[in-house]
Amino acid sequence: MSRQVDINCDLGEGFGNHSFGFDEQMLKFVSSANIACGFHAGDPLIMESTVAGCLSNGVAIGAHPGLPDLLGFGRRIIGVTPRDMHAYWTYQLGALGAFVKQQGGLLRHAKPHGAMYQLMANDAALAEAALAAMRSFDHDLRLYFPAPLVPAVAGATEKLGVETVQEVYVDLSYDDSGRILVERNKRLVSIDLVRERVRLFLAQRQIRTSSGGVIDVEARSLCVHSDTPNAVEILEAVLEVFAEESVEVSTP
Amino acid sequence: MSRQVDINCDLGEGFGNHSFGFDEQMLKFVSSANIACGFHAGDPLIMESTVAGCLSNGVAIGAHPGLPDLLGFGRRIIGVTPRDMHAYWTYQLGALGAFVKQQGGLLRHAKPHGAMYQLMANDAALAEAALAAMRSFDHDLRLYFPAPLVPAVAGATEKLGVETVQEVYVDLSYDDSGRILVERNKRLVSIDLVRERVRLFLAQRQIRTSSGGVIDVEARSLCVHSDTPNAVEILEAVLEVFAEESVEVSTP
Amino acid sequence: MSRQVDINCDLGEGFGNHSFGFDEQMLKFVSSANIACGFHAGDPLIMESTVAGCLSNGVAIGAHPGLPDLLGFGRRIIGVTPRDMHAYWTYQLGALGAFVKQQGGLLRHAKPHGAMYQLMANDAALAEAALAAMRSFDHDLRLYFPAPLVPAVAGATEKLGVETVQEVYVDLSYDDSGRILVERNKRLVSIDLVRERVRLFLAQRQIRTSSGGVIDVEARSLCVHSDTPNAVEILEAVLEVFAEESVEVSTP
Amino acid sequence: MSRQVDINCDLGEGFGNHSFGFDEQMLKFVSSANIACGFHAGDPLIMESTVAGCLSNGVAIGAHPGLPDLLGFGRRIIGVTPRDMHAYWTYQLGALGAFVKQQGGLLRHAKPHGAMYQLMANDAALAEAALAAMRSFDHDLRLYFPAPLVPAVAGATEKLGVETVQEVYVDLSYDDSGRILVERNKRLVSIDLVRERVRLFLAQRQIRTSSGGVIDVEARSLCVHSDTPNAVEILEAVLEVFAEESVEVSTP
Repeated sequence: MSRQVDINCDLGEGFGNHSFGFDEQMLKFVSSANIACGFHAGDPLIMESTVAGCLSNGVAIGAHPGLPDLLGFGRRIIGVTPRDMHAYWTYQLGALGAFVKQQGGLLRHAKPHGAMYQLMANDAALAEAALAAMRSFDHDLRLYFPAPLVPAVAGATEKLGVETVQEVYVDLSYDDSGRILVERNKRLVSIDLVRERVRLFLAQRQIRTSSGGVIDVEARSLCVHSDTPNAVEILEAVLEVFAEESVEVSTP
Repeated sequence: MSRQVDINCDLGEGFGNHSFGFDEQMLKFVSSANIACGFHAGDPLIMESTVAGCLSNGVAIGAHPGLPDLLGFGRRIIGVTPRDMHAYWTYQLGALGAFVKQQGGLLRHAKPHGAMYQLMANDAALAEAALAAMRSFDHDLRLYFPAPLVPAVAGATEKLGVETVQEVYVDLSYDDSGRILVERNKRLVSIDLVRERVRLFLAQRQIRTSSGGVIDVEARSLCVHSDTPNAVEILEAVLEVFAEESVEVSTP
Repeated sequence: MSRQVDINCDLGEGFGNHSFGFDEQMLKFVSSANIACGFHAGDPLIMESTVAGCLSNGVAIGAHPGLPDLLGFGRRIIGVTPRDMHAYWTYQLGALGAFVKQQGGLLRHAKPHGAMYQLMANDAALAEAALAAMRSFDHDLRLYFPAPLVPAVAGATEKLGVETVQEVYVDLSYDDSGRILVERNKRLVSIDLVRERVRLFLAQRQIRTSSGGVIDVEARSLCVHSDTPNAVEILEAVLEVFAEESVEVSTP
Repeated sequence: MSRQVDINCDLGEGFGNHSFGFDEQMLKFVSSANIACGFHAGDPLIMESTVAGCLSNGVAIGAHPGLPDLLGFGRRIIGVTPRDMHAYWTYQLGALGAFVKQQGGLLRHAKPHGAMYQLMANDAALAEAALAAMRSFDHDLRLYFPAPLVPAVAGATEKLGVETVQEVYVDLSYDDSGRILVERNKRLVSIDLVRERVRLFLAQRQIRTSSGGVIDVEARSLCVHSDTPNAVEILEAVLEVFAEESVEVSTP
């Protein structure tokens, strides 16, 4: 198996005077960042400085579009239409892309946030609307999406010719169908459990579900959240296991 | 003098289910549109359809960035910093530009809305921050700004090498220093007064101030607002005088 | 049967410079108003003046709490919890109640808006949370809710001892289970259909469903929306049928 | 001089998933709380739980109305009118008051936040509009306002018969006219400086200005901010000096 794995992290999720997560520490170790675009979190000043932080740390930049719900941090389902999805993706990709372009960087990928991930996973029309917006905005953008890829998204990426980087979560739980559970607030995660998940993933490209089974995941990237209370500790544990296994952190 | 004059109009200023202005009628007759970008008005769906309307009517597209104040329609001064201005312009240019790019159009200009115009007119640092954002986002964008150009903005455009299209208002009042008055709500405007202003402008490139004096204006564009209660009637009056004087409506 | 029927209308649904509906005309003829509280629409200035308009026209005042979704006008389902519902109702009742108290009026009832109605109709825990908030804020508030009362809401009102004023819609369609359909935008409604519905309701306390059946409705109030394009015409048709049938418009 | 001094603190300034300040620690030691009402910060869930926290800790509850500017945390001047101010105060007092009433507590006071304090300090018409709203909403509410009371506010309180609790800041700087400086972000404050300020205040009812002079302050309350990076340390320092001087913390 490959000796290179990408580590991606959601960044720039503060708003105004309200800071969020451990961006500065995470930026030093991850290879890819998904930057909030002002809908579920993030604002123009934070986007500008987070883009700058990525560029100065050599971190690949992606957009992290969310539902327009700052109050619920984009982690609550909203009954949007495909037209809404198309427009929400376009708006957020454009807004973030402007900061990247202005600073001489390159927007590399996009990854849906929270309930927007759930909507796409559950509804092929919504998945297709989002990806059509991404594709027509910038032909070369890649989609980050959790492995195993659900049919709604697999179909849309194939139909539209979108390259997908599948990712695995080591700080969230999976149900037996391989879906991750989106909660409104993150909780402390056991570091031992994190190490175990990373080892299982590196050894066998598998994750364990909440009922104890295993599922194959063809992931090229590993996601660590920046708002888990012990996020920095989790990232350190991931990096330690990577070092033990001689895996290099690298953008896919 | 030139027999071609641009007519520009602020469009796409609804929000969600709240419509605003007479966009459909205006689109048929103006040559340039300034489209709201979601801060003082406008939302992703409205931006998408307004861009489409411009393209199908052959109307040149500009961004109309505003202050983040939907409640005050961007017509109230907010104590922002140059860093805020830079980031607010970048965000809004990018968001609108994405819809234009997606639909195969070209973003041509930007024009500050309401209190954002006032901030730039009164503070050179704010003007420069806004224009630096515009310039670094897209080297070819032109600035629309009211004539006569105030020193704060004239200095910034010269310093940054931004091409400016000066514009004249025939539905607003001017004070003796040549500044237009921004009010939170538009009122009915006398059609006779509009005709008189258009004639004076076409004949002598001048506007009359509230105290009765005249000021020279080197304007290549004429602005008509879409939210004045009799906006359509005003636009018709402008077009009639243009026809009488054999002036053609055309993008500068 | 009773020769008095209440007519209620949702009012104050503008936001900032964005006006909405035909409030001034409706205020002259309805007996009860449901005033938006700033979540799906409405803002402090509009709430203040709408309360004043109700008091000067002798219209009974109710709160019209909605989901925090100005962009979707509160007509999109959001995945809220019972704790959210409780807090959203309390906040909005308090905010509107303050204007009423300040002007010497009395808050009489509350009626959920759009998707908040749907959430309560479909989920007993959400219905109970909303009504518990209402009850503990003001013991005497009555609930306005569409007839026929769905089990989730019937159970909650009984458990909490909340008096309910059931209402009938003559400008919306009913499905066969007696639920009204919430759409994001209102469309023109046939005046003949409105007259027919009013007559059927007055004669037999029944409404016709979209498949042609009839359903009994124990309604004491009739709702007319202010944002249907022909809202004023609809209200006039209702009043004409009332006059023909010698029915008086009166608060229940 | 009195051996009892109130300590007040701004609380409940998170928003959604974005927490803010050290509320839990502060609640254990302060005697009065000013709770954000959803405009500059705070949301319905946070208001509900902050009110509960005050009641269970025996902390007197006040409203902390701010300008509608979550992005700027209410610390940026906005060009509002007296009508805006009146409506913004009414809305926020009502919303917070509803949670207090629901939980069996009593709303005791109100204190303007950030730029809203500045607007009232600088403009008698705005001060009077705010206080008229407060007075007509609840006759018994007291105003918290920094000492020395500026003429605009002194005049309004006298005219409207509003009782004022003057307060002193030991974590902010004063200019020579006795006004405090509102910045968008709080910075670390020297603990030695805090002790010195508390001692000077307790001994002589005076504060030192940024140029080294002293100003008399007739304050009955002392304010400690919860969002200064070392807020808890500052509060502990205040309490230590109080203990040394045998001053008791008590609601005025």
